[in-house]
Order: sequence, then C-alpha cells, then structure tokens
Amino acid sequence: MKLQHCAWPDIEAYLKRSTAIIIPIGSTEQHGPTGFLGTDALCPEVLAEGIGERCGALIAPTLSIGMAQHHLGFPGSITLRPTTLIAVVQDVVNSLARHGFDRFFFLNGHGGNIASVTAAFSEVYAESSLGTASGNRPPLRCRLHNWWDVPGVKRLSSEVFGADEGSHATCSEVSLTYHAFPEAGQRLAAAGDALTPGRAPNGPIRDADDYRRRFPDGRIGSDPRKASAEAGARLYETAVTELSEVWKRFAAED
Amino acid sequence: MKLQHCAWPDIEAYLKRSTAIIIPIGSTEQHGPTGFLGTDALCPEVLAEGIGERCGALIAPTLSIGMAQHHLGFPGSITLRPTTLIAVVQDVVNSLARHGFDRFFFLNGHGGNIASVTAAFSEVYAESSLGTASGNRPPLRCRLHNWWDVPGVKRLSSEVFGADEGSHATCSEVSLTYHAFPEAGQRLAAAGDALTPGRAPNGPIRDADDYRRRFPDGRIGSDPRKASAEAGARLYETAVTELSEVWKRFAAED
Amino acid sequence: MKLQHCAWPDIEAYLKRSTAIIIPIGSTEQHGPTGFLGTDALCPEVLAEGIGERCGALIAPTLSIGMAQHHLGFPGSITLRPTTLIAVVQDVVNSLARHGFDRFFFLNGHGGNIASVTAAFSEVYAESSLGTASGNRPPLRCRLHNWWDVPGVKRLSSEVFGADEGSHATCSEVSLTYHAFPEAGQRLAAAGDALTPGRAPNGPIRDADDYRRRFPDGRIGSDPRKASAEAGARLYETAVTELSEVWKRFAAED
Amino acid sequence: MKLQHCAWPDIEAYLKRSTAIIIPIGSTEQHGPTGFLGTDALCPEVLAEGIGERCGALIAPTLSIGMAQHHLGFPGSITLRPTTLIAVVQDVVNSLARHGFDRFFFLNGHGGNIASVTAAFSEVYAESSLGTASGNRPPLRCRLHNWWDVPGVKRLSSEVFGADEGSHATCSEVSLTYHAFPEAGQRLAAAGDALTPGRAPNGPIRDADDYRRRFPDGRIGSDPRKASAEAGARLYETAVTELSEVWKRFAAED
Amino acid sequence: MKLQHCAWPDIEAYLKRSTAIIIPIGSTEQHGPTGFLGTDALCPEVLAEGIGERCGALIAPTLSIGMAQHHLGFPGSITLRPTTLIAVVQDVVNSLARHGFDRFFFLNGHGGNIASVTAAFSEVYAESSLGTASGNRPPLRCRLHNWWDVPGVKRLSSEVFGADEGSHATCSEVSLTYHAFPEAGQRLAAAGDALTPGRAPNGPIRDADDYRRRFPDGRIGSDPRKASAEAGARLYETAVTELSEVWKRFAAED
Amino acid sequence: MKLQHCAWPDIEAYLKRSTAIIIPIGSTEQHGPTGFLGTDALCPEVLAEGIGERCGALIAPTLSIGMAQHHLGFPGSITLRPTTLIAVVQDVVNSLARHGFDRFFFLNGHGGNIASVTAAFSEVYAESSLGTASGNRPPLRCRLHNWWDVPGVKRLSSEVFGADEGSHATCSEVSLTYHAFPEAGQRLAAAGDALTPGRAPNGPIRDADDYRRRFPDGRIGSDPRKASAEAGARLYETAVTELSEVWKRFAAED
Repeated sequence: MKLQHCAWPDIEAYLKRSTAIIIPIGSTEQHGPTGFLGTDALCPEVLAEGIGERCGALIAPTLSIGMAQHHLGFPGSITLRPTTLIAVVQDVVNSLARHGFDRFFFLNGHGGNIASVTAAFSEVYAESSLGTASGNRPPLRCRLHNWWDVPGVKRLSSEVFGADEGSHATCSEVSLTYHAFPEAGQRLAAAGDALTPGRAPNGPIRDADDYRRRFPDGRIGSDPRKASAEAGARLYETAVTELSEVWKRFAAED
Repeated sequence: MKLQHCAWPDIEAYLKRSTAIIIPIGSTEQHGPTGFLGTDALCPEVLAEGIGERCGALIAPTLSIGMAQHHLGFPGSITLRPTTLIAVVQDVVNSLARHGFDRFFFLNGHGGNIASVTAAFSEVYAESSLGTASGNRPPLRCRLHNWWDVPGVKRLSSEVFGADEGSHATCSEVSLTYHAFPEAGQRLAAAGDALTPGRAPNGPIRDADDYRRRFPDGRIGSDPRKASAEAGARLYETAVTELSEVWKRFAAED
Repeated sequence: MKLQHCAWPDIEAYLKRSTAIIIPIGSTEQHGPTGFLGTDALCPEVLAEGIGERCGALIAPTLSIGMAQHHLGFPGSITLRPTTLIAVVQDVVNSLARHGFDRFFFLNGHGGNIASVTAAFSEVYAESSLGTASGNRPPLRCRLHNWWDVPGVKRLSSEVFGADEGSHATCSEVSLTYHAFPEAGQRLAAAGDALTPGRAPNGPIRDADDYRRRFPDGRIGSDPRKASAEAGARLYETAVTELSEVWKRFAAED
Repeated sequence: MKLQHCAWPDIEAYLKRSTAIIIPIGSTEQHGPTGFLGTDALCPEVLAEGIGERCGALIAPTLSIGMAQHHLGFPGSITLRPTTLIAVVQDVVNSLARHGFDRFFFLNGHGGNIASVTAAFSEVYAESSLGTASGNRPPLRCRLHNWWDVPGVKRLSSEVFGADEGSHATCSEVSLTYHAFPEAGQRLAAAGDALTPGRAPNGPIRDADDYRRRFPDGRIGSDPRKASAEAGARLYETAVTELSEVWKRFAAED
Repeated sequence: MKLQHCAWPDIEAYLKRSTAIIIPIGSTEQHGPTGFLGTDALCPEVLAEGIGERCGALIAPTLSIGMAQHHLGFPGSITLRPTTLIAVVQDVVNSLARHGFDRFFFLNGHGGNIASVTAAFSEVYAESSLGTASGNRPPLRCRLHNWWDVPGVKRLSSEVFGADEGSHATCSEVSLTYHAFPEAGQRLAAAGDALTPGRAPNGPIRDADDYRRRFPDGRIGSDPRKASAEAGARLYETAVTELSEVWKRFAAED
Repeated sequence: MKLQHCAWPDIEAYLKRSTAIIIPIGSTEQHGPTGFLGTDALCPEVLAEGIGERCGALIAPTLSIGMAQHHLGFPGSITLRPTTLIAVVQDVVNSLARHGFDRFFFLNGHGGNIASVTAAFSEVYAESSLGTASGNRPPLRCRLHNWWDVPGVKRLSSEVFGADEGSHATCSEVSLTYHAFPEAGQRLAAAGDALTPGRAPNGPIRDADDYRRRFPDGRIGSDPRKASAEAGARLYETAVTELSEVWKRFAAED
C-alpha cells in the first residue's frame, strides 16, 4: 500500500488499524561501473513494496538521497550533509506523527545513512526529552533496519558470492537491482564489466578525494561481475519474507 | 535517461555532451478524496521521464517531499519546513555542481514549493555572491518550471475543465495521475467521488488548521470528478511536447 | 502611527481596536546610476506612513535590508541570505504575536524578497501546523503586498513610462523616491544621467557576477532618465489611496 | 552621507577615500510610559547622521530591531533571537566586505545588543581564523560603540540627571529623542508622566515575565519625567562632537 | 601529554613529530544507583592519560558532555542535541586542523555518542567533498574508538562478569571508575547497592520517559554490584596496553 | 560535590535542598610561552571545587572549550564558534532545568566567552519570552561570573603584579595554575621564560592572523615571568573565599 497512491481517506482508515509505517531510505551514489547509481534507494523501495503487498503495510515515498559525501568523486553521486538529512528525517517523522503515526520503520539501503539517521532519531526523541515536541505528539518508536540485516539474506549472500560479496557495490545489492530492473541491469553489466578488474580493495572511508584514490572504480571489496538477476530473485524472495516478519513484530510490539 | 538507472561512467559520458539536468520536485500531500497523495511528485516524475526519452535529458531522482505545511490537517500529508527544503536543494545542487553540472531544471509539481525552492536558488547563488562557494564551482543556472506552465497545457485545461479546474486537486493534475496510474486512479475515483460534493470553495492558504476549516475535503476551487485518464493522456502528450522545448532551450541557452 | 514613535501604552490601546500591523520591508541595493540604494526600503516606508495617516494603521519599523545577493556586484548593496531573512521575519512575527497581533501586512518594495518572505510565512505557519508554536499564539494571517501591485499604480506607470518602466530601477520607483526626497533625487539624477545610456537590457537573474555582466550599470529594462518627482507625486497619491483600501480589507477581513 | 540616499557610483567613489562605514544599530522595545519604542534605534540614527555630516562618514541603514527578549512583556517590543542577530550582522558585514569595506563601526543604542553583536563579530572573525571566509575578504575591523560611552555625555548625564538617570529608559536617551522628535516627544511626555511614579527600581534582567514583574512600567532605575528636549539638545551636541572624534580615529587607525 | 598542561611551543614541537591527537569524549548521565554520573567521560579520560604516558600521545581536553537525551529522566543527566554535538566536533577538528593536525582519535566512552560523532565526521569530510573546507586544510582522518572495543577488555569483562556485564552501567565501566576514583567509588557502592535489585532488564532505547519506565533505576542488563576496583585495575591495565597499540597504528598508518 | 562523582540519587537528594549549580566554563587556548593552554578552564575548575567543598555546592563538568577564535594562530588553541557555544549552553541549561535546576552559575575563566555565553543566556530566556520553552520549565536565573571579578582578587593582583598583570596570560591566572599544578607549572616556567621578552604589548582583538601579528608570543600586556605558585596560593585562597560568598547569595537570593 503505497502512500503516494492513496488518498487521504485511505490513510485515515489505515490509522484505525495501524499506526506504523515503512519509510524506504537510500542514497544516490556510484556503485561501481556495473551498478545502478540508484542501487541503495531502489533496493529498499522494491523490498518495501513487497512487504507492503504481503502485510498490508503502508509505504511512504522513498527518501532517495542520503548521506554519500564520500562518493562525490564519482559523477552522478549526490549527498545530503548529515545535518540536512537529520532535518529531513525530523520533518518527515513530525509530519506523520501529527496524523497519529508513532512507529517509523526506516528500511535502509545505505550504510552511510546509519549514523545520520540514528542521530536524527535522537534529535527527534530529544524533542520529547527536552520538552519541545508538539504537545500532542505521542511517544514515538523509530527503527532503522538495513534490508540485508536478516539471517537468510546474509546466508544466501555468503553461499552464492563468498568473498566476492564485498562491502560497497556488493554482489547482493547489484543482483537485487538486476532482478528488479532486468533490462537496465543487462545494459550496465555489459558496459561495465570490462571496467571492473577483479575483486576491489578494502579500506577506510573518509572524504571523496581519498575515496577515489583508494577505490578507483568505486567498489569496495566486491567483484560484482558475479552478480546476476537470478541471484537477485532469490535474494528478493528471502528478504521480503524475512523483513515481513521483522516488520510485523515491530508494528505489533508492546 | 534516469540517473538512478545509470552507472557513473554513463554520467561521465553524459557530461561531455551536456551539463544540464532535470530534477523532478513535488510534494506528498492530500489532493482531495479522489486524488493521489503523491500527485505533485508523480506528475513531474512521469513528465520528466517523457522528456528524458525524447530529448536524452538526464533525470535526477524525484524529490518527493516538499513544502506542504498547510496540508497537515489531512492524514498522509508530509512537509519539509522551508529551511529544510532550502538545505536539501542546496546540497543536491552543490553535489551535482562538483561533477560539472551547471544547469539545474527543477520540474515542479507543487505550488507550495515555489517560494522555498526559489529562495533556495538565492541561497545557492549567494554562496557565489558572498564568496563562500567551493572554489571550483562554475557559475550556476537554476530554473524552477511548473509542469502546467506551458501554453498548451493551460489551453487544454481550460477547454476541458473550464471553471472546474480549480487550484488544488485540480482536474488536470488528477487526470494526469489517472492516465499514468490507471488502476489506482480508478480505485481512487470510485472511492472518493461520493466524498467530493461539487466544486470546492476558494480562499487563502495559511496554517493547517485554518486550511482544513476552509477546505473540509482538501480541494481548492476544483471539481475533480471531472478528471479522467483520457484527459490525462492528452495533457501528458501536450506537456511532454512543450516542456521538451522549454528544456532544450534551457539546456542550450547562452 | 509609527510604532517607533509610540510608547507601550499606546500599543496596548491600539490592540483594543486592531490586531493588524503594517511592516514595511525593502532592500538596500543598487538601483542604477540615478536611483537611491535605499529605493526599495524608502518606497514602502513613505507609503506605509501615508497609509498610517489615513487609516490609523500602526507601522512597524522598516526592515531595510532584504534579499539582494544578485546586486552584490555593485558597491553599497547589502544582502541577507534567504535563511537569515526567514529567521528575521519569524522573530518579528512571533514577537508581535505575543502581544496579540495576528494580522501582518508586509508592504514590500523589492521583488527579490518575495520568495524568502513567502517561505518565511510558511516557516511561521509550520510552527502551528507541526505544533511547535507558542501555546498562546493565535492563528496568524501573514500577507506580502508589493506596493506597485494595485491597479491604479500599474495603469499610471504604463501611461507615463510605457516600455521605459522596466523591471529594476524602474521609472516608477525612482520617481517615487524623487518625490519623497527631492533634493537628494535631483543630485542623483544630475550625477547619474550620463551613466545611463538608454533603456537597459532584460534577462534572467542569477548570482552577482552574472548580474553585473548582463546589466553593467545595474538597471533591468528601464530608462529611469524618464523618472520625475512629478510622476512620483502622482504615484504616491494613487498608491496610498489604493493600498489603504487593500489594508482596510485585510485588517477587517473575516 | 546616508548610504540609502546614494547611488552605487557614489559608494564606488567613497571607497577610494575610505573603507570605513557607520552602521547604526538599535532596538524596538518599550522605554517606559514616556519613552519612544524606537528610542534605541532613533538615538544612534540621529547621531550617526550628525557624525556623517561633520565627517563625511558613510552611514548604513539603521538596524532597528535588536535583541530585546526581556522587553516582550510590554506591547510593541520586538526581538531578534541572539542567533538571528548574529546572522544579520554576519550578512551585513560580509556584503559590505565584498565591496572593499573593512572597518565597521556599529554605533549602538541598546545595551541588550552588546553581547550578541560582540558574539557576531567573533563569528565573522572566526570565518577568517578557521579559513572559511571568502578568499577575497580583507582583514576586518569590527567595533561596537555605545553612543553614550563618551566622557562628555556621561558627564552631562550625571550633571543634569544625577541618580534619576537610571539604566533603562534613561533620562538621557529619552531627552535625546525629545530633542530629535519634539512633537512626538511632547505627546509621550504628556500621556506618560502620570504612569511614571517616581524613580524606577533596579534589578537583574532575565526573561520577559520576570522583567515585567520587577519593573511594572518598564523603566529600570530612572525617572524620565526629568527628561527634556533642552537636555537632549545638549546631549546631541556633545555626543556628535565626541563620537566624531572616536569615528575619525577608528577610520584612520593603523 | 595533556594538551591543557602544555604551552603553545610544546604543541609546535609535538607537531614536528606527530600530527595525531587523542580526544577523549564521553557523556554526563546516570549510570544506575552505584555508578558515577561521569562514568562515560572519566573512563576515556583516565585511559587516554595512560596511553599518553606510554606513547607520548597528545591528549586534548575531554568532551565531557555527549548525546544522552534518553537519560534525562534521571537527575544529573545532561545532553547535547545531536546537531549541537556535531557542531562541537566540527569546531574542535577544524581548530586543530588549522595547526596541522590531521589524525583525530576520539576515544569514546558512550554508546550514545557513536551515531552523532560518526555523523560529525561525515559533516567534516563533506566540507572537503563539497569544497567548502578551508583551502589550507589537509586531508583528515577521523576515528571513533570505544575504549571497550579491544579483544582483551571484552575477554576480561566476559570472564569476570559474564551475563552480569549488561549494556548500560556495565560492571566493566563501573569497575574502571572504582579503580580510578576508589574513595568516591566506595561511597557510591555503599549508598547504591540497596537500590540495585539484581540484574537489570534489557530493551530498546527511545526517549527519556520511555527509558525511565523500562529501566526504573537506570541500568540496562547489568548487575553492577559485581563491579570492583580490583577488576577495574585489571581492565585499566589491559585497556591501556591494547588501546596504545591501536593508537600507534592509527598515528603511523599510511 | 562534583556532579561527575555523584550517582543520580545524590542529585535527587541535592535538589531537595538546592536548585542551584555551578558550571565551570573556560577555554583551551595559548597563554604565552609559560602559560598552560588549559589555563582558562583549569582556573574555574579548581576554584569551583574549592567552593564546592566549602559550601556543598554541586559542580557540573567543566566546559573546557570556549570561544577562542582569535588564538587560533598559536598551536593547540581550540575554539567553538559563538553559535556553537550558544547551542552548548542552551542544551546544558535545558537538560538541567528538566531536573528542576533553575539557578545556573557559570564560573568563567575566559574573557572571550563573555559575549557568547551572555548571548546564550538571552537565547535561553527568549525561549520563555517567545513561548517555545518546555511547558515544564521553571523561570530560570543564569549568571556568568568571571573568577577574577571579586574585590580581593583584584586587590591582590594589583598589589603583587602591578602593571605586569596584563590582560591575557595574566600573572594572576598563570600563578593560579602554577599553584594548582606545581610540577607542570615549573616545567612551563623553565621552558618558556626565555621566550617571554618583558611585558607584552596591548591592542585590540580581531581575527587570529591579526592577533598573532600584534602579539607574537601570545600574551597581551602581561609579564608572566612574575607569576609564582606562591602568589597563586594566595589568589586561590582569596578567590575561593570571596566567590563562595557570591555563590551563596546567588543560590539563596529571592
């Protein structure tokens, strides 16, 4: 149930049965020569849709631009500064809280968002703790969940890709996008494979110039030439199944 | 050419032929009982895609949440505060400017964004004027264009809907979404028509409580029961054709 | 009735009969070689005084510095960043709201302020809509009105100056200041006429360097050598008369 | 030489002989039942004009609204939050610095501004010290000078008013405004004297409610019934003479 | 080598041999009835001193107040909002970077700081990536290291405390403070033991009211009655030894 | 009674007898070749401890980093921007206010903090005055007191050091640190004396480059070779005695 495809009376009705909502959050940033710039937004978006269908969960619009300052050395990458992202999350949560939502499940597709979004939750909670939140705001529950942080997905990644999985432009996330967008995926794979010379190096993440120097084609630790739409289909199925359980527990927890 | 579906070498190649980009910007807010909460983001998104196909323009991810504080009286509406939206636009422009983009065409679907986005442009320009922009930043050109601000669209709206067009939850925008998402549109029309008692009143826009009092079902001045996927198809065709011309002039202007 | 020339018991008394106030807002920026740097603040200031005399309206101190980043290529121009101007408007409105004012009529003299001030109104309204406004704050009504946006003024400008009116350093605004400050006006006209070679070009507004390149003496589209104190006197009379009506409706509206 | 009454070529010429400027800064806040709400802005404004005439100094528009949160218990008082005032001062200084001004003489009329404006200077200097100022910005000199902080003025106040001078709504500042605006001054004196029961109490300054409780008619320590236009004339003469010397030293210092 | 106990020529000399610095960062917040409110600042402070002695590392002043909004239900707890903490870290890093420091080792004592400090690093890096950092700033390396995140400490905690360790007001951190401040520790243990009824519950962390409800005496999952100065002495020794190695690698890494 | 060395039940008990707290605030900045970089934080810290012992006052953790932008030309100096320091003070006060504290005694060791901390108090008070403070917040009393601003200390400084006292890296503050940290003090005196050629010059304070040019070794007006631990001991005794009285009056005042 995509919020964007509802009218307001639909939301009014939904709120009678649930005050929980899924907010896909990602990033727009390079994912190596064979990966979509939109990988980190597209993955939680398609998974959220899957969860929405199975569980009747309401899905907010995807926050497609995240904290990706380290990727700015590669054309097409876009970042919000952490403080901007904090303000965005604050506003989204406070808007929805006015309607009665009090459980916010941010389905995340980008490691670089974790710190800023978690800080944003504290900023939101601090409004309650310091007494400056709206007088009508109920106690809130904010949860960040990375889509890959469920056991079945980790198992599958490990089985299928082993050490080629890596940590940026991973085989798993690239596969998931190839499954979701097969045509575009084929084009990217065909064009980028030659620019992807084996498994990428590992290393720390700092600013954009440093990143480009360490990881000249953008990947970290991965060999996404191993990615495939087929693996993506399996990952999708597993992820939707397991994340649906996580979601249901979150939406129902005491 | 959707940026999210490109890899970074695609953008590197694109920048050799153009430094202009389209950024669809909308809002997530009630559009009456028969309109999509996503109307204002979906319209520029689908039109941008159309322009992209015809002109080879690069399309950034849609900024789906805008300045919609006045709609917060209706469930599902989400707002960024103007200062948050300004920060978002600043970060998006500065990120892309690092790569060499210098022409930013914000295709807008929401009247409530105009002031904040225009102010954001001035905030960005002021970085140059006050000397605090990145030393490498080229002179920038930022343009906000409302998708309905082309003569053919205005003519068509007027012909087909006359005084029922209104100014919020307009027949035109509702039609365009019905064309783009026919199934969801039919559901909304069926469910919401009964809650849409004739043409809505007009009036000023202030805060959310005042808005809900003046416009009890959310519409301003419109009777979107007149909206149709057929009208939407015509609007789509006209808008893509005319906006493509606007875009081409902007991308090529001296 | 100038607020600065009242003592606090005067305002206490005023509030018993009206909760509306006029706030002149302008800018300090070049207006070509013959125009006052203060044009955009002086015009609404003198008109507000006129309205105040006729209608007993209370006039707040003029906000003389506005959003004028694009004029910074010309000595003497001063800007607030949009976010600074938003904070100023917020503070002024919230201060006055504490006393019971709830109708804020910003009489504006500068096109460049429109976006930022309108965004500021939304920022103020959003405090109500998101529930963070002071618990005692009444519902507010904020209005921005450009002094030239009344039919009689537009008619007169068009009759007297035709195509020489232009859009920056317009004949009308220059005339109005010549009327209000005849001595200084004569000096400016005498000194600047030679530097004003005919009607100025038109074009878009971006950052300060771009502006100076396009409009080398600062004017846009105007030939203010046509300006005169006589025309200014007629404009003054018409503007005060018509704006008084606008003000009275605003102060009394339901 | 009022900047608002100059055209940009005048400032270009001025900058060839001086890079110093006077910026009157005040406040809009209650000054007891007999004092102008504008006292703190009007005093530095009229004195700056006097200095400007004697010394050829350039006078920026008055910043009429300052930091006056403690006066908000009295109708008509307006405050900027300290952080807003800091942003305003930053923008004004940086705008003028772009033109080549590097000596900023803030002629202050309000004790409550001192901390925030001094903090603003540090914020501006910190841009240099932390390396984020515009690359073209010259080293800056910012000075805050209270108009009453010259020996002759202090002597005169003490001679004429003795212990009745007080520290808010002082006899001196009220006298100065009575001299500058005799008609309005007479009205205020006539209306307010009866509400001014002898010398006001002294005490600390905290928030607005506390202030109103301690100082029920707004004054601190003063008996402004002793104020007079005659004393104001003497104060004006002395202040302009002495401040002109201060200004000349500042403008010329090494 | 405590920076506070050096004069500036000492730092000038230090910078010739190292551009790395340790910045202890903690929090001031309840640690149950037997734990110091200063636990999270005192632990990294005493450990940093130990590392400093062994390795000649320079130790910045401890940032004693961190992000602790969730503890505000218990008297004595103090928080910075995440955005404030980000600004503090930014300023500290940029100040030191001006002197030539480019390796910042934040020795952390508080889990609640991790997100905000990590976000702060990205905010700092983003200044480079977006081109707004000082032109003289070298590439920076920022590292957050929790003092307990070394294998020997984890092993020792597990051996000595097993399941009583918990996750807030842990036996380890309480022991470390008892070792460092034996007298005060004895007092706290004596006074608080009776208020510490067995092992505390576990649960999620949200706002302060929710926290107090879930964890009525402040602890999470721990039974700090098992804490002892003796265990603290062993933890101290192990932590200093292992963290010294981590520091040396960081200071020397390529 | 150091807050960091208390557990939360201690503070709960303290609040039953007092709602006042001492917050030492200083700076980390060069104090000439013989002065501690920590001078301005260490002085109020040790004095606060002394007051705490005599009066049972509760002492918050020292805010060791203040506003010191002008010292950034000397290695080791660290600054917060004024706006950052304002946010820090706001958060500290609001955190403690939640627990019931309403009297905040900032014992200050650094002249450069005065403006920013005073502005911070106004920012905090403005939350009450503008109605945005937490609904539960009591009326607050914030006081900044420089440790040297008591008559006995001024008398002693004058007697012992005369014109050598100066205004930065003063003999008094250096002596006080030599008393408190005799070993480190001896080292500094020994190492730095040769770099301290007589009494330092006086002059204005602007940005860091200007400061370093005017005051090449960091001192202003002082000859701290006259400083001694013995003088420090006398200053300590006098300061603690007199400040204890100031504190007691503040904590008890009506």
